[in-house]
Amino acid sequence: MPGEFDYIRGVRGRTRPAPGVLVGPGDDCAVLVPPAGQLLVTTDLLTEGVDFLLAEASPEAVGRKAMGVNLSDVAAMAGTPFAAVVSLALPRHPPGMTTRELADRLDAGLREMADRFQVAIVGGDTNTWDGGLVVNVTVLGRADRPVPRDGAKAGDAIFVTGPLGGSLLGRHLDPTPRVREALALRDFVELHAMIDISDGFAADLAHVLAESGCGAEIDAAAVPVHADAVARSRLTGRTPLDHALNDGEDFELIFTVGGPDEAALLARSPVPVVRVGRVVAGTGLWLVAGGVRTVLTPAGWVHAV
Amino acid sequence: MPGEFDYIRGVRGRTRPAPGVLVGPGDDCAVLVPPAGQLLVTTDLLTEGVDFLLAEASPEAVGRKAMGVNLSDVAAMAGTPFAAVVSLALPRHPPGMTTRELADRLDAGLREMADRFQVAIVGGDTNTWDGGLVVNVTVLGRADRPVPRDGAKAGDAIFVTGPLGGSLLGRHLDPTPRVREALALRDFVELHAMIDISDGFAADLAHVLAESGCGAEIDAAAVPVHADAVARSRLTGRTPLDHALNDGEDFELIFTVGGPDEAALLARSPVPVVRVGRVVAGTGLWLVAGGVRTVLTPAGWVHAV
Repeated sequence: MPGEFDYIRGVRGRTRPAPGVLVGPGDDCAVLVPPAGQLLVTTDLLTEGVDFLLAEASPEAVGRKAMGVNLSDVAAMAGTPFAAVVSLALPRHPPGMTTRELADRLDAGLREMADRFQVAIVGGDTNTWDGGLVVNVTVLGRADRPVPRDGAKAGDAIFVTGPLGGSLLGRHLDPTPRVREALALRDFVELHAMIDISDGFAADLAHVLAESGCGAEIDAAAVPVHADAVARSRLTGRTPLDHALNDGEDFELIFTVGGPDEAALLARSPVPVVRVGRVVAGTGLWLVAGGVRTVLTPAGWVHAV
Repeated sequence: MPGEFDYIRGVRGRTRPAPGVLVGPGDDCAVLVPPAGQLLVTTDLLTEGVDFLLAEASPEAVGRKAMGVNLSDVAAMAGTPFAAVVSLALPRHPPGMTTRELADRLDAGLREMADRFQVAIVGGDTNTWDGGLVVNVTVLGRADRPVPRDGAKAGDAIFVTGPLGGSLLGRHLDPTPRVREALALRDFVELHAMIDISDGFAADLAHVLAESGCGAEIDAAAVPVHADAVARSRLTGRTPLDHALNDGEDFELIFTVGGPDEAALLARSPVPVVRVGRVVAGTGLWLVAGGVRTVLTPAGWVHAV
């Protein structure tokens, strides 16, 4: 696009040399030193009206979210993110600002989140069009032993890294990718399966179970309910627990471990974790409350707004 | 998004195991064996109305183009592409088909182009929204000695890999990334600088010159003019040469080499190449015709339509 080259020059000016980056933005490709261990790749595309409302969310928050959801995917493999490329489709007439201002403020948010995790933004593609804002980020990471979704075993304990629900009140726009927590856990126990919560606790756990060929029982009383879930329940009439189980974009991790590791985590986990249930043989996802077992059907969470 | 998981299952079903792919689509990240040599990363985002018209281009062609432009960027570094991730923002009501049909046909085009170059599609992100179609592809490649844009030297000969201009007649939707040509040239000569033609011959050469701190003289009589440029000139009233110099998305390569390699290429290049001019000291891009030197100002090419 006309002007893209100038924009890339701007990005280059803001790009500090990073270890392992041989050629950064401005050439046909970025050139990187390949990581030791295994190479992780993940990509996420956010669209205006679905993942954020530009009239409500600041461009900086959109940038942080677009980078953060990808870092969260790397965390879910117990990986270390190291590089990112960013593609933008910018509206010609964003509300209340120029296209250039929107681009600069998005970039600031993307960069803030990337810097927080020592991730180098090594390239991208900037476009303008008559449509809404679209932000796509691809993140590269490294891992010695990536933790898959399909490793859960009957008998495993199921943990989460923090309280759940109500992210629509604002947290969905300001994710804290659990990169450091995942690495600390990986160093402390053998993680059998892990996933980050984007679709919702029940929905994402169901992915793990489907991949692993297992079922699970969740202890309703053990599920950590975020204060935002309580606040949301006052608006929606749904219970706080329902929000905790089904709201999306918490970006906490769900993981499973075997018996000895379960005991070790309960005794002295290096990071905050809560045991919420157990993997069982067979299929099915069950909620246990007051000794009564009911089917827990993941509600289809519609991303944002 | 609701349904994404099912879509990913479909993609997984179409994904054959590929060498170096440890975990393909369906987990939080793809897991790859890092390449030998250096790691290349490039990303391109195509938008409806700017890069293609969905009412005119088949979804398969859009898919081929979205993958092809990225492969062309890897070719421009003399790299070998090996993996890709794909993000889609799909309109809820595409013209004349369902969203699912659009997704499947895009996927077929993406896959056709990827397969042609032994590139594994290892993951992605599929979304629906109320906006137009957006396709983002990120491609990873490997290279032992990536060829940059900034290596052109005064005295270098400037070559292109094929005839130029008029890609709007259809070639822009059906790029032939010059991956094999670039590798054959890399094995035959020392490539000083290289770029693929996306913005237009003059504009992209200007990028090389700006990066390299040089100027260039182009021999008007030597520029290979594509038959499509001639056809376009009948519609536009501009000269065929003007189309060859300024039309975008030819996806041929421009590269420069030193004296001995110039002679070798003219004598026995392993792939078709045409010498079009010479790098000169100082700055400026000049067109030489009939012994007269005029400034060649890159026209801002507006992508498609």
